[in-house]
Amino acid sequence: VDGPVRQRSLWQHNLALVLRHVSAATPTSRAEVAAATGLTRATVSSLVEDLLRAGLVTEVEPAPRTGAGRPATGLVLSAAGPAGLGLEINVDFLAAAVVDLTGAVRHHVVRRVDQRDRAPERVLADVARMAAEAVGSADLRVAAGSADLRVAAARLAVPGLVDGDGLVRAAPNLGWRDLDVVGPLLAAADWPDLPVTVDNEANLGALGELAAFRQPAASSSASFLYISGEVGIGAGLVLDGALFRGAHGWSGEIGHVTVSPDGPVCRCGARGCLERYAGQEAIMRAAGIACDPALSADMAVARIAELARSSDPAVLDALSDAGTALGIAAAGVVNLLDVDTVVLGGSFAALATWLGSPVERELRERVLTAGWSPIEVRASALGAAATVIGAAGSVVHDLRAAPATWVSTLR
Amino acid sequence: VDGPVRQRSLWQHNLALVLRHVSAATPTSRAEVAAATGLTRATVSSLVEDLLRAGLVTEVEPAPRTGAGRPATGLVLSAAGPAGLGLEINVDFLAAAVVDLTGAVRHHVVRRVDQRDRAPERVLADVARMAAEAVGSADLRVAAGSADLRVAAARLAVPGLVDGDGLVRAAPNLGWRDLDVVGPLLAAADWPDLPVTVDNEANLGALGELAAFRQPAASSSASFLYISGEVGIGAGLVLDGALFRGAHGWSGEIGHVTVSPDGPVCRCGARGCLERYAGQEAIMRAAGIACDPALSADMAVARIAELARSSDPAVLDALSDAGTALGIAAAGVVNLLDVDTVVLGGSFAALATWLGSPVERELRERVLTAGWSPIEVRASALGAAATVIGAAGSVVHDLRAAPATWVSTLR
Repeated sequence: VDGPVRQRSLWQHNLALVLRHVSAATPTSRAEVAAATGLTRATVSSLVEDLLRAGLVTEVEPAPRTGAGRPATGLVLSAAGPAGLGLEINVDFLAAAVVDLTGAVRHHVVRRVDQRDRAPERVLADVARMAAEAVGSADLRVAAGSADLRVAAARLAVPGLVDGDGLVRAAPNLGWRDLDVVGPLLAAADWPDLPVTVDNEANLGALGELAAFRQPAASSSASFLYISGEVGIGAGLVLDGALFRGAHGWSGEIGHVTVSPDGPVCRCGARGCLERYAGQEAIMRAAGIACDPALSADMAVARIAELARSSDPAVLDALSDAGTALGIAAAGVVNLLDVDTVVLGGSFAALATWLGSPVERELRERVLTAGWSPIEVRASALGAAATVIGAAGSVVHDLRAAPATWVSTLR
Repeated sequence: VDGPVRQRSLWQHNLALVLRHVSAATPTSRAEVAAATGLTRATVSSLVEDLLRAGLVTEVEPAPRTGAGRPATGLVLSAAGPAGLGLEINVDFLAAAVVDLTGAVRHHVVRRVDQRDRAPERVLADVARMAAEAVGSADLRVAAGSADLRVAAARLAVPGLVDGDGLVRAAPNLGWRDLDVVGPLLAAADWPDLPVTVDNEANLGALGELAAFRQPAASSSASFLYISGEVGIGAGLVLDGALFRGAHGWSGEIGHVTVSPDGPVCRCGARGCLERYAGQEAIMRAAGIACDPALSADMAVARIAELARSSDPAVLDALSDAGTALGIAAAGVVNLLDVDTVVLGGSFAALATWLGSPVERELRERVLTAGWSPIEVRASALGAAATVIGAAGSVVHDLRAAPATWVSTLR
């Protein structure tokens, strides 16, 4: 109950409702949408007209019909409609992706360069260049004669704490503090009108996972803990199908949850944080692998996986200990939030073969309700790409949930 | 976007909207409600008529007005309208409370009897008797000549895991497992028509705290962690003003969050659970106070507080260690959920003087964002009464949020 329901909000509500029905069943017809929503055929026709004009929906040839009557024109989401641009700055790579309105990934580029000793402006200039390439990419040409995909908005993922207004409070592994990233990015990118928002990488990874999860119309509960292993460890909490951000947008700092109160001192100053047991450097150190600065994080992960596959005992022990620590932290989350799925994302996805069983064991032992309802542990479906695809996909998700803004701007 | 907005749902929506405005500003007038909501005066008059007829709203004499024009009749929530009945079964007491539509506590009775060795049917028969007393209580007579308060629904608090359909999965401190409590309660109580729901005691305590918190129109964020100390330890998570229940309704099991992975074995089978450090029996044991079976839990708490006030060193140490463990568990929650308030409830409210500083210290040291935004730690406003008052108040809250059901049944 937030305000009276009046004409404009009725239109917004019903526009989103019709678009949701078109998304769910493809192709569908105006008559089917009217039957499914309970709206009149005239109202549905008028709303479909708005969606067609704004390029969100497109008409397809009707399938030949054996029964009586003229077959109805089909309606589908437009693959040439407004798209989402995802951008990612991580500790040792940059990435860009475009996801179209149907949820298809139309462009995905990763550039592996260590960002740790670079000035933020140079990093952001590189991101702006990748964004321009993505927007101008040939992948986005839909078909001869039709218009190109148009990017509606961009979302940038950063490995750190992000405020509601897009200020990066702290990205410790990049050495960033209190940094405005939107201004310099827009300046470098030369598209002052594109709406750009910034979010934490684990949050967007969780959204990527949520979308991948939903594509096959999976009816499973959409509450899960997504744990993202990069140089640091973050989490995204999806509760009842939506990302939970917390009072300031700082939720998901699972890397600094206490695993053992008297454990080793963490970068953050506290003792016994999860990062000290399951962070990439902690695993490398425990496995006796020298931290080679020339080795990028994903190459380091590939190296760990290779040694584990060849049954290197030190590496297997290191992964078992990391998995135990992950499981203790995850059990706390499940005891508190009663989520029934734990997703291992980021670099943990590539190590899930070895991390999975100790995580499952700790959950079984430490979650009070594990006996009634088992907790599923699985690797992220998108692996390390979840974040940038989630960033692009979350733009599309917002557009589909509230199409009125986009439709209005074109009127 | 869950369905089309049509006549009936418009009426439901606007009925709740008008009631919300009457609740917020007392007394208000039809004209003020129309101005504040944007609804027409005719619509507001018709909705107010529905609310008056159903007894949710009542008219009061207008205040004498100095300006021009006839003063408008005032509208207020009816203290004689439908009320909520709260019931509580705890390890060593039973309680009942009635909260009227305005949020006022009209009846509150606590009966201290250890329930541990009693058959569930006898416990439920006692609860039914207390409920009958509450419903028939003289406190509920509003004024000579007016109708008595009518209880619209009851909610029962239980110290354990409760399923969505009201089955108590496990209340370990009572020794209950897979027990239907609604059926026997209704049978014993002889009001087959009264809707009864069951919930976890910490959840309802958190709702009680939320209501108490809101009464003075506090604008503070309504996200907090409510930790309830009884014989066991539970938590209620209020996120964005609503209780978060989890996938099966089993959220809030903070008593079984790991504080130290190799710590002592808990009743649940796991090692190092919070209950083993900060549960009532753990505090008594650490303080060297013999567990006297004749000593009820709240008498035991009073004893601990008395010894702490007289600076008994063993008791002060025990409370400091319990507070440290509570702080470690709470820091994990804040790192994950970015809530900015921790409320010490149940018996912890009476011990907050000693538990507060170690909890604050651990939060300061272990929460990554503590430097940017301090976390408030405070004792529950309602103390041990939070649960039963929260149970009754949550019935009223539901009624006020969706008055259409109540109004329709009277039509």
